[in-house]
Amino acid sequence: MSTIPFSTQYKRIATEEAFAPADLIDRYRKLYESHELNDPGFDSLWGFYSSSKAARPTFIREKLADLDAGRIADMDATGVDHQIIALTSPGVQVFDRATALSLARECNDVLEAAVRRHPTRFTGMIAIAPQAPEQAAAELQRCKAVGFRGIIINSHTMGEYLSDTKFWPIFEAAEALDLPIYLHPNTPPKSMIGPMVDAGLDGAIFGFGVETGFHLLRIIVAGVFDRFPRLQIIVGHMGEALPYWLYRLEYMHAAGVRAARYESMKPLQKKIGDYLRENVYITNSGVAWEPAIKFAQQIVGVDRVMYAMDYPYQYTPQEVIDLDNMQMDLADKRAFYQTVAERVFKL
Amino acid sequence: MSTIPFSTQYKRIATEEAFAPADLIDRYRKLYESHELNDPGFDSLWGFYSSSKAARPTFIREKLADLDAGRIADMDATGVDHQIIALTSPGVQVFDRATALSLARECNDVLEAAVRRHPTRFTGMIAIAPQAPEQAAAELQRCKAVGFRGIIINSHTMGEYLSDTKFWPIFEAAEALDLPIYLHPNTPPKSMIGPMVDAGLDGAIFGFGVETGFHLLRIIVAGVFDRFPRLQIIVGHMGEALPYWLYRLEYMHAAGVRAARYESMKPLQKKIGDYLRENVYITNSGVAWEPAIKFAQQIVGVDRVMYAMDYPYQYTPQEVIDLDNMQMDLADKRAFYQTVAERVFKL
Repeated sequence: MSTIPFSTQYKRIATEEAFAPADLIDRYRKLYESHELNDPGFDSLWGFYSSSKAARPTFIREKLADLDAGRIADMDATGVDHQIIALTSPGVQVFDRATALSLARECNDVLEAAVRRHPTRFTGMIAIAPQAPEQAAAELQRCKAVGFRGIIINSHTMGEYLSDTKFWPIFEAAEALDLPIYLHPNTPPKSMIGPMVDAGLDGAIFGFGVETGFHLLRIIVAGVFDRFPRLQIIVGHMGEALPYWLYRLEYMHAAGVRAARYESMKPLQKKIGDYLRENVYITNSGVAWEPAIKFAQQIVGVDRVMYAMDYPYQYTPQEVIDLDNMQMDLADKRAFYQTVAERVFKL
Repeated sequence: MSTIPFSTQYKRIATEEAFAPADLIDRYRKLYESHELNDPGFDSLWGFYSSSKAARPTFIREKLADLDAGRIADMDATGVDHQIIALTSPGVQVFDRATALSLARECNDVLEAAVRRHPTRFTGMIAIAPQAPEQAAAELQRCKAVGFRGIIINSHTMGEYLSDTKFWPIFEAAEALDLPIYLHPNTPPKSMIGPMVDAGLDGAIFGFGVETGFHLLRIIVAGVFDRFPRLQIIVGHMGEALPYWLYRLEYMHAAGVRAARYESMKPLQKKIGDYLRENVYITNSGVAWEPAIKFAQQIVGVDRVMYAMDYPYQYTPQEVIDLDNMQMDLADKRAFYQTVAERVFKL
């Protein structure tokens, strides 16, 4: 009983779709109630989503846990052929190392089993515990062997960023295993969220984009792509605004390097835009909007921009219709919906 | 001896051009050396610009203080007909109330005298001390009477934002006097700058945009434009990315209001994009880049996007040539360079 038929012209492959075992959401609720994490962003996000009785969080809690009939019915109802599924934010990145490592493994096993049950509809990304970089790299190897096609990392891990070389064993393994990393939003860490929460701007409306764009920019200026030139990072939300900022990023990075203003800011082998075009993929999660999609295609290339629904957070059937109706060559629309994702995730 | 001739097709009116009396830069240097402000962003910015011997900060220090022959020669060399001039960031917003009030008055007097000497080349914006909202409103009245055509506010004032109703006497006066407010970047406050400084990302490359986009968004969601519907705010740097984020801002604001997630987030009379199109002007300061300029024109309208050079911070003659060569109707290019600014600043 499809309300939006499957397309005959392209597969719709949604690339930033979330799940969470009910047990994990329960852990988030308890962690929030304990206030032990000392992370106002986490408390704001999961204090709300783990227990609010409002329609949106209730819907999201139910759908996150469903990796079978309910999810597939929603996909059928919106003509989505395939979901690339990842553990929701902040994943296991808010727990101590031992808990995070075992939880990541458990969640990966849950997702692997779902992919086995529905291999034509689901593909999985690997949850990892960046808290333990070497063990995280080992988990990548284990999961790659059982069919996972990407990695999910929910931005900062307790205030730390992947630009820190201690995390680079993860990049090394991702590059060696040819697994793209989806750098997904989280709320900004305590040291950056300051005045955002009281204004209600810490989450998806603004803070997510600041945090994730900042994280990707840190990774670029730290020289990660010079060290791991085949590494591929995916970011959602139309590139977390970095494509729009590109001129200024390049101008001011060059100015900062010339003036030797920062000890940490060294020359890079390429321009920032080169990394966006050679090492970054962008999805339109949260942004079902032709002008921004076309802008990103123009700046980083049609072969670097993919579709995402952000199910269940933004399960909005009208958005599929709007995207189908974009004024765009069929070849470019097929790249957006289907063929770029097929290449990135080796479908 | 013009290297770029004045255009015969339009005036080039540059709308975010900076000055600073040498005495103020000296005060910044002393404030930095005292570390009394406890503001890592200020220390990073003016610790560098007030004393670095590198070519860029040395050039900027010299040019900021020049409101006569040197500045006009640079304008002539780049075919810039007219500058809209404002006190550089963070203006007087880092001093105690009494100092800030008297310094604002002094700086406004310096700029007024320069505009009197060069009335066909310069127009002034008013520096104010938001620390003292009622007195700031009085300074607006005084300066409007002597020919100023706008107001400059350098984002947060010691960590506080204009969304706080205690600052609204400034909005009330600006609306009553029909003076647009240029909301100019500053580094993020201590509570938000956290991990930006060590990566070299606190300034114009990234932190400025986060801070200023955040500030404008706070103003919008606080209902300032519902309360002051004729108020006009100008932001540079292609709108500090808010046009690119617009779809997500509107979607998530509506979702947040529906779920009553935040006490502070109330319904607004209009959509966020309506405020951008009715209460906000955008300049291309720092971003001499056709794709972003055209994107902003598409989203907020050709009658809402203006030219800025950001002299002396980005005195790059090639950028004028690049902007002249944009593939754009002459009428739209004239709007961009000249006629929108003439209307906004009543030239």
